[in-house]
Amino acid sequence: MVRPVSELSSLIETRLNELDLNRTPHDLYQPVSYMLSLRAKRTRPVLLLAGCDMFGGNLDHALSPAAGIEVFHNFTLLHDDIMDNAPLRRSHQTVHKRWNPNVAILSGDAMFVLACQLMMQTRDECLREVLEIFHRTAIEVCEGQQMDMDFERMEKVSIQDYIHMITLKTAVLLGCSLKIGAEISGAAKQDSEHVYEFGKNIGIAFQLRDDLLDVFGEGTKVGKQTGGDILACKKTFLWLKASEIATGTERENLIYWFHSTNEDPGQRVHHVKAVYESLGLFELAQKEMEKYYNIAMHHLDAIEVIEENKSVLSSIAGKLMVREH
Amino acid sequence: MVRPVSELSSLIETRLNELDLNRTPHDLYQPVSYMLSLRAKRTRPVLLLAGCDMFGGNLDHALSPAAGIEVFHNFTLLHDDIMDNAPLRRSHQTVHKRWNPNVAILSGDAMFVLACQLMMQTRDECLREVLEIFHRTAIEVCEGQQMDMDFERMEKVSIQDYIHMITLKTAVLLGCSLKIGAEISGAAKQDSEHVYEFGKNIGIAFQLRDDLLDVFGEGTKVGKQTGGDILACKKTFLWLKASEIATGTERENLIYWFHSTNEDPGQRVHHVKAVYESLGLFELAQKEMEKYYNIAMHHLDAIEVIEENKSVLSSIAGKLMVREH
Repeated sequence: MVRPVSELSSLIETRLNELDLNRTPHDLYQPVSYMLSLRAKRTRPVLLLAGCDMFGGNLDHALSPAAGIEVFHNFTLLHDDIMDNAPLRRSHQTVHKRWNPNVAILSGDAMFVLACQLMMQTRDECLREVLEIFHRTAIEVCEGQQMDMDFERMEKVSIQDYIHMITLKTAVLLGCSLKIGAEISGAAKQDSEHVYEFGKNIGIAFQLRDDLLDVFGEGTKVGKQTGGDILACKKTFLWLKASEIATGTERENLIYWFHSTNEDPGQRVHHVKAVYESLGLFELAQKEMEKYYNIAMHHLDAIEVIEENKSVLSSIAGKLMVREH
Repeated sequence: MVRPVSELSSLIETRLNELDLNRTPHDLYQPVSYMLSLRAKRTRPVLLLAGCDMFGGNLDHALSPAAGIEVFHNFTLLHDDIMDNAPLRRSHQTVHKRWNPNVAILSGDAMFVLACQLMMQTRDECLREVLEIFHRTAIEVCEGQQMDMDFERMEKVSIQDYIHMITLKTAVLLGCSLKIGAEISGAAKQDSEHVYEFGKNIGIAFQLRDDLLDVFGEGTKVGKQTGGDILACKKTFLWLKASEIATGTERENLIYWFHSTNEDPGQRVHHVKAVYESLGLFELAQKEMEKYYNIAMHHLDAIEVIEENKSVLSSIAGKLMVREH
């Protein structure tokens, strides 16, 4: 019998609370403690534990690596927030605003070291494999973030490049979390690959869903202003697809309202959304999303454990796909 | 017969040149390549190899970790330069000036991952031990950098706090390099501790020598303006000791000229240096430095290998102590 998500979540909160962050220098450790205290879904560490649990692994060997993957994820958020000059993270001030950019750079660095230290607290037999997946993923996440920044300055970005970018920036860390859990459990090589591919493809679907919700979600439910990506001129799947297929007046309208940062924000969102709707983009994005969801489920099917042990992953996948906040 | 420093240096350059940094995204990898191409003494990787060689270890197992320690060191320089807003590093533009701060943050992060990946390329038998020393040191270096930034804002800093800060920020990485080399060679536990303490104490002496040279060195030889630390109001050993012992008019003079950033730079250095000289600070700093040098040599003596195998370390120590650039 595999453990439900609620039980996995509470194991992680307990492990995170055990971290000794009441250390000096305070300006190095308090931002770490602050980041980890912000309410979060702990998706990645839950996946890591679930990846271990489904193959009958001992969760004691996975708890510290699970905390490590959450610390790593928060490190990337901390540094990304400096780069994006974001004022808020999870409805609270970002570290670089609440303290300053130097504190944010350095406490981010310390978080990364802390993540490595936690990742090592597992069995000797899988240590090298776990760290290799972790570091390969870490470098891919850096590559994804750089590509995202590059795209801001680029005239033309293909859908393929966009999918590649979100794969690196977001999706591989979900696959990595699951695979580390599987490796700790001692799962067979091919199962560990399938669980990685499941996580990665769910991650891609998840990001496409995010792009969709930004425009077509209900503002209050998604917890942010509808059309935030449009107002920030973000080259999401919707924008890239629209600029690929729009022609004539529709194209002119799209380009005008997307880039006219001087116009009224409500009007900008309204007009861009109208073009998206007339191009049938809701359905196109939904279809693209389902494509990756289906690939993910195909990999889940291929894993050689009893169906019952897959229930947690399929329920997480299902919830990610219908989430509205 | 242990290998001379020149041979160890050339082994490191070869290994660093083998790194595949001609990768995309270019803005992530080019700064890494740029940092590593700047002329440097490669002190830390040389120490790592020397630490392995003196115990008869196989250098093939130490070459990638040696490259890793150099990449890590350059990562800390890269992020420190952003925090210090430094325009130059090794007479070349810093990464955040040549590219921009976001590129510097992210390529620094990537360098840290790369350092971890290189550090892992060693024997399974010592993998955990090597990574534990490496990460413990990495977090200490972050702590030292934060303390250094804290000191800038603090009224009073004790000599003890200052020594603690330079130990973390600079010295432990030298000890760590040697200890990793020793661990890879399979050296005995107590020898590995002695070689660590040797490196750490040489590191402290080395930093005190740096403080001294800034004021009493010949500008052209040290490759920077004499008194740079005074002009930047840096709380070095000299300043802290002087403000501890100066009284009366001397004290007033010291404080006035140290903090008067509006006055002529040449005059500031001249007056502060005059107080340092009249307080006999050159001798006091020299004595402090020798104290740590002697502790280092005591640990070197205690290592149980034939004297001949210690020749490289004692020669490195000697050179560090008389270096004028």
